[in-house]
Amino acid sequence: MKRVYLDHNATTPVRAEARDAMIAAMDLCGNPSSVHAEGRAAKSLIERSRAQIAEAFGADGADIVFTSSATESAALALSGRGLHGAPVEHDAVRAWTNEDLSVSQQGIVEVSDPAGSTLQLANSETGVVQNLPQGLAVTDATQAFGKLPVAFNWLGAQMALISAHKLGGPKGCGALVLKRGTDLAAQIKGGGQEMGRRSGTENVIGIAGFAAAATAAARDLADGCWDRVAELRNILENALAVDAPETIFVGKESPRLPNTTCFATPGWKGETQVMQMDLAGFAISAGSACSSGKVRASAVLTAMGYDEITAQGAVRVSLGLETTEEDVLRFAEAWLKKQKKHRARAA
Amino acid sequence: MKRVYLDHNATTPVRAEARDAMIAAMDLCGNPSSVHAEGRAAKSLIERSRAQIAEAFGADGADIVFTSSATESAALALSGRGLHGAPVEHDAVRAWTNEDLSVSQQGIVEVSDPAGSTLQLANSETGVVQNLPQGLAVTDATQAFGKLPVAFNWLGAQMALISAHKLGGPKGCGALVLKRGTDLAAQIKGGGQEMGRRSGTENVIGIAGFAAAATAAARDLADGCWDRVAELRNILENALAVDAPETIFVGKESPRLPNTTCFATPGWKGETQVMQMDLAGFAISAGSACSSGKVRASAVLTAMGYDEITAQGAVRVSLGLETTEEDVLRFAEAWLKKQKKHRARAA
Repeated sequence: MKRVYLDHNATTPVRAEARDAMIAAMDLCGNPSSVHAEGRAAKSLIERSRAQIAEAFGADGADIVFTSSATESAALALSGRGLHGAPVEHDAVRAWTNEDLSVSQQGIVEVSDPAGSTLQLANSETGVVQNLPQGLAVTDATQAFGKLPVAFNWLGAQMALISAHKLGGPKGCGALVLKRGTDLAAQIKGGGQEMGRRSGTENVIGIAGFAAAATAAARDLADGCWDRVAELRNILENALAVDAPETIFVGKESPRLPNTTCFATPGWKGETQVMQMDLAGFAISAGSACSSGKVRASAVLTAMGYDEITAQGAVRVSLGLETTEEDVLRFAEAWLKKQKKHRARAA
Repeated sequence: MKRVYLDHNATTPVRAEARDAMIAAMDLCGNPSSVHAEGRAAKSLIERSRAQIAEAFGADGADIVFTSSATESAALALSGRGLHGAPVEHDAVRAWTNEDLSVSQQGIVEVSDPAGSTLQLANSETGVVQNLPQGLAVTDATQAFGKLPVAFNWLGAQMALISAHKLGGPKGCGALVLKRGTDLAAQIKGGGQEMGRRSGTENVIGIAGFAAAATAAARDLADGCWDRVAELRNILENALAVDAPETIFVGKESPRLPNTTCFATPGWKGETQVMQMDLAGFAISAGSACSSGKVRASAVLTAMGYDEITAQGAVRVSLGLETTEEDVLRFAEAWLKKQKKHRARAA
């Protein structure tokens, strides 16, 4: 039986457009820093890609520094600054912040000092979308970019983190977007690439894939493709709620990403659910991908006030553009079957 | 007329094996940190790639931390340590070292405190190969790996920097190789990938290409392919020396990479030569690629005791496995033609 991939917030399949762009980029042999024709061709691809990403992200006139991941972008934007942050941020952001912002039961973060704070646009585990205050220092737009209408120039943030592999591009390619002229101390030094902000020969193939994916993602978003995905997500939640009414849907009352549902069954460990669903042919997750493998309660859910037992019983299902109604109905059926067994054992 | 690419030390064309491996990796949709089947498949590819690179680099049992470039590896290995280094190191190394090691006219570096020093294995501009002392803290093996027989386990260094795109892999993928158990503080934090030493979702496609390229490079090296390249390099140098006997071949008396020649014509700027050769259909460089675009004397040559006029008059020609005798003879002819014109103007 065909496997069903429902873990798009962890990473997405490579889009056909990104695949084609990457294969084409493999033929460019020059180093973008070389002045000869081969070098200029590679440089030109990078600059075209930068412009494409700026357009898709509504960041005309902003600076875009290519990095190897949103995680690297976070280190570049945040390290040594001691910004305020919430415990619902991704670990790559939490590593550098003071976790002193409070979070409501519905996942909404309160910011009192935007210029001294970082706040994610959307949460990877729950899909909860924040209403960003103007003047924010940094926003992690990794999960939102490509799934929600976002324009950096309207967000009012000084910097934003983005990543290729969350919107159909390759893994290992990200960017830090900054208002033009923002001071930024390089952490990786040497050849002076990226206007001295981030040295190292550029990931030409990955950047080409990032740009193609971003352009395709912006097109799909404008075409309303995520509205259909949101309907499928709602169909899934309804199916589970009807047959397993004790299921807790986390953040459901807040604005959410169209593709994400996080639901908890206290007493049935998320890790166990993930493994049972994997054996049944479905890829889902408990917590964010980077934390997978570690069996512990989701920090996101405990920050939202859920108890340990509930937080440990949560899983995330995140749909993609290729997800079908049959996929979600088959998942609901398989999950409900296991859930009944769990309930029977627990009774 | 077909262009001739003679700038392989700046970057190399992607090998067919790397291309195929990268295209195959595009079909893996999982995040290597995810526990489901799709995640495990991606993780497995990374671990197989790590083992392949360890074998090609003679680093069985050592730790290999994947990074986005040798430049990032340098920052990870060197920042905050204040090691001794020579001014002939790559800018990515120089950024973090005390430039207090002396260099001979033939490019050989003297190290008195190996445990407190970093020393490159081969120089990118001149090709000069160092005889590494045992117990070295860090070696930059970027240019040597794939072109010279090198085994990390015999080098006697604690750490080594390597890069995919110098041996036929993709740009934007490197590694730091360390003796097992070496302490290393992470600079990019978050999800805890690479055993906590370097977070961020892995560049799965690039890593697959790196491994395939490293394996192919090791095979070609064992097959003696670089001996042929060294002959072509010698043919080129002889052709230039016969018709332009005033040409200075830098580092020629030292052991060198088989593919590299660096030669200077005092008074004829390297940048000008690069542009003239580019128009004539040949890609070469003046200094290392990262420094290209900046018109200044090569720091490598001035460190070797050459005066500014000579250092500014140097270019590097670096051959690859696909270089033919016709390529180098055509280059020699074109260069000598321009050189005669320069000489006539200068006279």
